[in-house]
Amino acid sequence: MNSFGQLFRLTDFGDTHGPSMGGIIDGCPAGLAIDMAFVQSELDRRAPVSGGPLVTDRLEEDRVDFVSGIYEGVSTGAPIAFIISNRDGRPNLETNNILKPSHASFVLREKYGHHCNEQGGRSSARQTVNRVVGGAVAKLLLATCGIRIEAHTLSVAQISREGDTGGALVQGCIHGAPAGLGEPSYHGFDARLAAAMLSIPACKGFEIGEGFRAADSCGYEYNDRQYPDFSFRTNHDGGVQAGISNGQDITFRVAFKPIPTVRIPQETIDYEGNVVSYCGNARNDVSVVPRVLPVVEAMAALVTADLILLNRSSRL
Amino acid sequence: MNSFGQLFRLTDFGDTHGPSMGGIIDGCPAGLAIDMAFVQSELDRRAPVSGGPLVTDRLEEDRVDFVSGIYEGVSTGAPIAFIISNRDGRPNLETNNILKPSHASFVLREKYGHHCNEQGGRSSARQTVNRVVGGAVAKLLLATCGIRIEAHTLSVAQISREGDTGGALVQGCIHGAPAGLGEPSYHGFDARLAAAMLSIPACKGFEIGEGFRAADSCGYEYNDRQYPDFSFRTNHDGGVQAGISNGQDITFRVAFKPIPTVRIPQETIDYEGNVVSYCGNARNDVSVVPRVLPVVEAMAALVTADLILLNRSSRL
Amino acid sequence: MNSFGQLFRLTDFGDTHGPSMGGIIDGCPAGLAIDMAFVQSELDRRAPVSGGPLVTDRLEEDRVDFVSGIYEGVSTGAPIAFIISNRDGRPNLETNNILKPSHASFVLREKYGHHCNEQGGRSSARQTVNRVVGGAVAKLLLATCGIRIEAHTLSVAQISREGDTGGALVQGCIHGAPAGLGEPSYHGFDARLAAAMLSIPACKGFEIGEGFRAADSCGYEYNDRQYPDFSFRTNHDGGVQAGISNGQDITFRVAFKPIPTVRIPQETIDYEGNVVSYCGNARNDVSVVPRVLPVVEAMAALVTADLILLNRSSRL
Amino acid sequence: MNSFGQLFRLTDFGDTHGPSMGGIIDGCPAGLAIDMAFVQSELDRRAPVSGGPLVTDRLEEDRVDFVSGIYEGVSTGAPIAFIISNRDGRPNLETNNILKPSHASFVLREKYGHHCNEQGGRSSARQTVNRVVGGAVAKLLLATCGIRIEAHTLSVAQISREGDTGGALVQGCIHGAPAGLGEPSYHGFDARLAAAMLSIPACKGFEIGEGFRAADSCGYEYNDRQYPDFSFRTNHDGGVQAGISNGQDITFRVAFKPIPTVRIPQETIDYEGNVVSYCGNARNDVSVVPRVLPVVEAMAALVTADLILLNRSSRL
Repeated sequence: MNSFGQLFRLTDFGDTHGPSMGGIIDGCPAGLAIDMAFVQSELDRRAPVSGGPLVTDRLEEDRVDFVSGIYEGVSTGAPIAFIISNRDGRPNLETNNILKPSHASFVLREKYGHHCNEQGGRSSARQTVNRVVGGAVAKLLLATCGIRIEAHTLSVAQISREGDTGGALVQGCIHGAPAGLGEPSYHGFDARLAAAMLSIPACKGFEIGEGFRAADSCGYEYNDRQYPDFSFRTNHDGGVQAGISNGQDITFRVAFKPIPTVRIPQETIDYEGNVVSYCGNARNDVSVVPRVLPVVEAMAALVTADLILLNRSSRL
Repeated sequence: MNSFGQLFRLTDFGDTHGPSMGGIIDGCPAGLAIDMAFVQSELDRRAPVSGGPLVTDRLEEDRVDFVSGIYEGVSTGAPIAFIISNRDGRPNLETNNILKPSHASFVLREKYGHHCNEQGGRSSARQTVNRVVGGAVAKLLLATCGIRIEAHTLSVAQISREGDTGGALVQGCIHGAPAGLGEPSYHGFDARLAAAMLSIPACKGFEIGEGFRAADSCGYEYNDRQYPDFSFRTNHDGGVQAGISNGQDITFRVAFKPIPTVRIPQETIDYEGNVVSYCGNARNDVSVVPRVLPVVEAMAALVTADLILLNRSSRL
Repeated sequence: MNSFGQLFRLTDFGDTHGPSMGGIIDGCPAGLAIDMAFVQSELDRRAPVSGGPLVTDRLEEDRVDFVSGIYEGVSTGAPIAFIISNRDGRPNLETNNILKPSHASFVLREKYGHHCNEQGGRSSARQTVNRVVGGAVAKLLLATCGIRIEAHTLSVAQISREGDTGGALVQGCIHGAPAGLGEPSYHGFDARLAAAMLSIPACKGFEIGEGFRAADSCGYEYNDRQYPDFSFRTNHDGGVQAGISNGQDITFRVAFKPIPTVRIPQETIDYEGNVVSYCGNARNDVSVVPRVLPVVEAMAALVTADLILLNRSSRL
Repeated sequence: MNSFGQLFRLTDFGDTHGPSMGGIIDGCPAGLAIDMAFVQSELDRRAPVSGGPLVTDRLEEDRVDFVSGIYEGVSTGAPIAFIISNRDGRPNLETNNILKPSHASFVLREKYGHHCNEQGGRSSARQTVNRVVGGAVAKLLLATCGIRIEAHTLSVAQISREGDTGGALVQGCIHGAPAGLGEPSYHGFDARLAAAMLSIPACKGFEIGEGFRAADSCGYEYNDRQYPDFSFRTNHDGGVQAGISNGQDITFRVAFKPIPTVRIPQETIDYEGNVVSYCGNARNDVSVVPRVLPVVEAMAALVTADLILLNRSSRL
């Protein structure tokens, strides 16, 4: 359940306030050069920019250590394991009994039957460091196929109140994917991407190509027709038709809700049902962007790498 | 790859112009009464309404036969197999060489390396009969837990031209799901629902709760806070937080593009790269609604049934 | 759960006394010529030989119909579904309440909580028709790689009493498998073969190469050493080392217990706990051989085909 | 591929000469008390007994650290990760180019296309520390259901030469398993056990109950009949019928070949095809027993725990 992917698969672990995060990348073909500096640079993109306007000023130096599966800088075919130490692991026990609004604590208690340490659960955004590492290795694999992934911020909600947080809209693009990736029916490229994105904390929506605008379109104008050289005149479908890539850019948008921890007192309850006031502290980000961008790219890379390997079995 | 679900799993088959569609429902607990009339009624909801304004007038009497896994009307624990005959299986060979705009034929050829019979592939909407049968059995399982699923049409694109098709927006709701369903991290309820919906032919977008509107919201107003009795004041999150259901209605919206086959001549190409004109015939629907509604419900039911079974292992 | 394999996967169904058996072969690469006569001939090998000394004289004409996934005799990449009608589906209701010795009925009731029709369950040897069909398609795929599989009877237990049944020992061999097949650690070639064989009804043991004799061997003599041209001097390991094929013949033996249904009255009980006498009828085989031989081959073929496809992802 | 189990799943990593071994236990229900001393004691059983006659005198103090998924000694439902440092990680580079007889190095090179560090691969017995940890947690889960697993040595091959190694025969037993565990058809209890055992390095055979002796038995004598209280008169089937446990002890035997590294010079080749002499050093065990016993138990525990959880979905 804590695994993502079928052939190129990331399985990961980590409680925010435990000693470390980490994961196992299974199924990476042997012979891939693992550019450690690139992997670290991806992690750095996810780290808070000191002094930036939208992000926490907490010091989070994430250093990744690969502990298996790589020999002299090249993947061996064995599982690639990595560990990232948690430098700042003190739990905030004072607020442990409070049901923070729109937080994971209530549902985790309902599911597992105990009080989870609030930020210690799997639902913390901290867990996304593992995704970024797995995605970075996937990007290296994709680069050998000429595939490149990038995400950028389309918009951030206007924040009118001091201490509030805002949602954000992110655009992603997979460049250079060949036609033929994606399994028809249940495991199409678009279905896999949608699951990947919705699995990112705070994500509430996904659309590909024209997306929701397609619901208001007519077929004659919408259809992506092809020139005699098989190139496409338009890309309303966002590069995926019938679950399979058609060789065009794969374009998608992802909606993120505001980070639930705001620095404004909110009336809520504790686990005993008492009404209490809760106010986040100064260490939280104002929006998921820009730190979520490498996470969006990582998830798209994990999906694409998996489909590349699955596609090796599509023909005799 | 042609399987959906982990414990409650549908694996299916069928080429439109072959003799039959069908599937195997694996993992249905023993002891479930299978109401055949209900299953058939779900199929009937997907069938074209003769004379309706939006749907094909092709005769499609889908009769489902269960051939294993049920004994005296009750599931035995063995795999439940079903078959649906194709009554009208003549392939349209005349248009077999044409790259129909936004159709599956191009990508299937790129993936599998051959000319697929146009409507014979797995990407045809015809394949959704299997989903409806699997979903109907899932609904029967969910009913024993007090869970009910329904979808309805929110809007249909305005069609200005004779013979054109239009996109549609569908709203879905899962009523009565207990808190605790969904696996954190990669297999949350929302991620699974997103994949399920995007796997439906013509789907281009998914959002849960406020969805894309959340990207333009601020945290203080957006957060779903709880009353002292643990009930929620609002449901902006659409019943899922951190990938896990919180006991509220699970509400989502799905965007469908226009059906690509329009009854207006379109300039396109054939597989030899010649420019040709293609015009759909009178047997195609104008929009995926209302026939897609039971498909949306079926996919939501398959997801929910699977998560119900997975959740049986969440606690000691 | 009723699926076998990861990429080349058979999912099947069928109750002995239902209308049909059948299955879905998923993941067969597109472009494979499906020799229908060969598939049928494999089924015929499993059918009873009229008048043979060890087998039932029941008429079982198994005719396989492929209903999807094949176009003009070639696999399309879509799931390959097949159906085999049950000609002689009358349940023997008289003995339905008896706990037949060493039969599946007791454990199925314990697992699923109801009285299963005795021969109707998934545990019946009848279910192996599906394996033979799946294995036949796998063999066709393997033939394109120069791999050939065969099994033969090594011994049959001496039967001293009229109406009794006897166990059997079967030898299997996979010829022509290249070195490198099998996933190290948990999914080695030998581990997969062992599971495949033990899943055949009545199988009680599996060994590869020297097998149990290896437990009484010394390393200096046992080790398979190589000549300067990398060929092996001996094959004590049976062609698999560290879970991976080494290019030699893969040789294994499979032990089958006697068929539990004997034509001698046996004292047993019924579901109410009454002591009763049970005696099988004349339609049962005396031993699993020779009819189990194509089943052994089929399971080995399914394993090998899956590992062939998995191995396509082992290197960059 | 480096995962074992469906619901209770171990995914692991580690190269012998890397900094650490470790793994992730996914799917352990929340609320299980993790007795760290017990887990460590299981690891200690696998460690070499200084001065013992059959084992290496290498110092291997395996200390396991759990780094996630446990809070105040109880499983939280999150993935349980553990790390075991490698204390003595110097690779023996001198012999790196030699094809050690019956060793993993040749097949790994064939599979992955490079020279693997000889003992660094996944095939080393060192990897079994991870299995022991995973199995120890599984045993704790099983103990809450009254299930206990134990293995002991039946025989060790007589060694006639100084420096040679010998095969061994191991008996395993699962006590207290309720009737109903195991999925019929492909994922029976016996099939899962067989795969689990064959996946242990040096294992060459598996049998359950009478095993290979069943091949020489007659049905009338072999059949396990039941008394009116449903208890069994005999246990020839070893507690599993039709892939499902019947409530009796589950008894099986596992054959191990001699450890391939002998301290006698053997003529072999190097990767350039030159004939060379290779002689193991003094640090290797003489037989897999007794150190393999906790590994056999661990694999049986992982299988049983998984089937326990799967069985939670067998009935409505």
